[in-house]
Amino acid sequence: MNIHFKNIYCILPCAKTCGTGRSYEVKETNIYVTNDIISGIGTAPDGFIADRTVQGKNKILSVGLVNAHNHAYMSVFRNSADDVLFEEWLFKRILPLEDKLVDEDIYWGTQLSCLEMLKSGTTTFLDMHITKNIVPKAVEDVGMRAVISKGIVGEGTAEYGLTRLADAKEEINNFKNSKLVSFMLAPHAIYTCDSEYLKIVTEEAKKLNVPIHTHLAESPVELKDALEKYGKTPVEYLADLGVFDVKTICAHCVQLNDNDIDIFKKYNVSVAANPVSNLKLANGIAPIKKMLDKGINVAIGTDGPASNNGQNMFREMNFHALLHKGVNHDAEAVSALETYKCATENGAKALALDNCGVLEVGKKADLFVMDINQPQFYPRNNLMSALCYSARGTEIDMVLVDGKILIEDGKSTTLDEEKIYYNASKVIERITK
Amino acid sequence: MNIHFKNIYCILPCAKTCGTGRSYEVKETNIYVTNDIISGIGTAPDGFIADRTVQGKNKILSVGLVNAHNHAYMSVFRNSADDVLFEEWLFKRILPLEDKLVDEDIYWGTQLSCLEMLKSGTTTFLDMHITKNIVPKAVEDVGMRAVISKGIVGEGTAEYGLTRLADAKEEINNFKNSKLVSFMLAPHAIYTCDSEYLKIVTEEAKKLNVPIHTHLAESPVELKDALEKYGKTPVEYLADLGVFDVKTICAHCVQLNDNDIDIFKKYNVSVAANPVSNLKLANGIAPIKKMLDKGINVAIGTDGPASNNGQNMFREMNFHALLHKGVNHDAEAVSALETYKCATENGAKALALDNCGVLEVGKKADLFVMDINQPQFYPRNNLMSALCYSARGTEIDMVLVDGKILIEDGKSTTLDEEKIYYNASKVIERITK
Repeated sequence: MNIHFKNIYCILPCAKTCGTGRSYEVKETNIYVTNDIISGIGTAPDGFIADRTVQGKNKILSVGLVNAHNHAYMSVFRNSADDVLFEEWLFKRILPLEDKLVDEDIYWGTQLSCLEMLKSGTTTFLDMHITKNIVPKAVEDVGMRAVISKGIVGEGTAEYGLTRLADAKEEINNFKNSKLVSFMLAPHAIYTCDSEYLKIVTEEAKKLNVPIHTHLAESPVELKDALEKYGKTPVEYLADLGVFDVKTICAHCVQLNDNDIDIFKKYNVSVAANPVSNLKLANGIAPIKKMLDKGINVAIGTDGPASNNGQNMFREMNFHALLHKGVNHDAEAVSALETYKCATENGAKALALDNCGVLEVGKKADLFVMDINQPQFYPRNNLMSALCYSARGTEIDMVLVDGKILIEDGKSTTLDEEKIYYNASKVIERITK
Repeated sequence: MNIHFKNIYCILPCAKTCGTGRSYEVKETNIYVTNDIISGIGTAPDGFIADRTVQGKNKILSVGLVNAHNHAYMSVFRNSADDVLFEEWLFKRILPLEDKLVDEDIYWGTQLSCLEMLKSGTTTFLDMHITKNIVPKAVEDVGMRAVISKGIVGEGTAEYGLTRLADAKEEINNFKNSKLVSFMLAPHAIYTCDSEYLKIVTEEAKKLNVPIHTHLAESPVELKDALEKYGKTPVEYLADLGVFDVKTICAHCVQLNDNDIDIFKKYNVSVAANPVSNLKLANGIAPIKKMLDKGINVAIGTDGPASNNGQNMFREMNFHALLHKGVNHDAEAVSALETYKCATENGAKALALDNCGVLEVGKKADLFVMDINQPQFYPRNNLMSALCYSARGTEIDMVLVDGKILIEDGKSTTLDEEKIYYNASKVIERITK
């Protein structure tokens, strides 16, 4: 379908710079979509005939947000374990429930998260899950773009770890022709994978030519244990094992020293900031300002809905832009513009997707349109600021992924929302019986 | 009008305790409103005939939120000065614009904030403004409940300070018969009012029998200056001047030591936490957990829209509940329940309003109804958590103040929204010319 977005405020890359890369500006213009591709900005491509024209009055158009770290299936646990200590949260609340999940539960949990993400402007996410084939199937059925990784754990060549790795490879192979999903290998963390297993997984990633996705330096305990056990920080440990020889995205990265950040820079490691999860689970606040100042590719993720309660990237952007001003006593730290980049362009880069994440001719038409005829958007003094500081994410009007309209008037055009709510609710009813 | 809310999830006070006071529970029940009063919970009052029945399916009902510190007129400056240092923000961006405001601008700015607050479930707010009579007029025209205070500054008996005090008294007198607005006296801060003036204002507050509303211990500079100038913390300084002999609410309270918190306890001072503003302007993070642990009456406010970018209390609750877990490395700190209390009951108490802030028979019908048929509210594992951690504030369906329906289907029933947007936008266009 050819779509013309007419006279609409757009967030466009511009000639200026921001941090170590390009900057963005808000400009009223026309956007042309031909099938799955952004085919024109300002000027229609030759011979363009619109099947549909979307009037831009009181609307803002942007590339879709990229949620750079998630466990989408965990939405079934939302609000089931809040205001409790990490040990209680993980071992007494979440894991006993997780053990009872069957494939169908994972499917509905994933779709519920996808629905929430889409409705709040996210078009692409990086997922770490616990089963085989179900998450890519759920995502394809939704029509979102995702990079998927089965979380794997292991000890050397012990069978359980190799089986999990084989499962991950099988999943990758099963979906190798997918238009929407691609893959990473995901060794869960340094405290659930030993060094030999991490090396095996790294070699496998090289062979498969896929990046690595892992949790790193999340809690003070992880840091303390690494220092005691290896005499190294978690970052030094992974670097020395050779993991970073493969393109890597590390989630959390709260417990870092300056040398760790230099290592990230040296190996071009991407970071997924998870500010809400880190606060909720009392892990602290990641040194995002330092990382951005050193030119690290910082993306933003919500983490799973059990450690966040929501999958709304606007909320995450809000925390990302505000926290580091307060803790660094620097009101200029992590601007709205930098935050927007983290949530779009940097996210796509971290996910190794070069076909989305920026509003440019030739890129995939992964877009959201937000209704800004709401009090929180008046007066329109600075729409970039508005998007980062004033938007709630629930003002999304329309979402396109791969050129397909998946959300219109704030509602899914392709999914039975009530069915998803019903099925996701049934899961928790059954497993808590 | 008599309204029956039928089979609706409600947040009700219960027999359990939370911190130093009562706890709340979520329960499906029936709520009856007779004119401006909550007349029945569970059981209809004798002879009740509903003029209107609201079906509760997929909805949650709560008392309206209380925004305990605001400068509502400043919405005209929204997003006009972000990501800049405090000195630039105040002296180069905000004050030069503020100097150009005329009464009509204040009116539209206030109404824009009221509209945003109502649409996100806030029914009552505490305001500090800069002109005379306009804000109470704007609020009465909207139909919200508010406690209003003209910000005043002065030096001893110098004329400018006494004139401002006289203006504040005149405003209080002009609206003394208002059903919806009440008043406080608002000496702006210890760095804009000298000690003699603070004593004069305190004596006047005693005579008028109104509380005092002030900014206190907001920035590191304010603390440093007070220590240098008076050899006292800002809190000690106000206590020693006798200000706290009058019922007082202090906004911000970021720079506190343990003794300051003891002083608040001794004098029963209420605190308005402003987490977003404190982060945005790089002032830091208030010791809210310590205050709550010591039984201080902590309320929550957004601060003005120039130092926040929004007037949405759900966002503020979100930061309030999450920040202190992260900075104290304590996942149990400041629970969803405590946060809800801060945003409702504690707010009403801080504002010296004993007729609202809790869902009880006999209280004013200041209520919101939220549509929870959205992905962020599924599964319904814990609706109190959902309200605090998952809600965005934009899911508000209906709002009543003083028994009148002011918002229905998320839209104002009494205001011309487009007219407010237009007029508030015109202000900034004119003054930035």
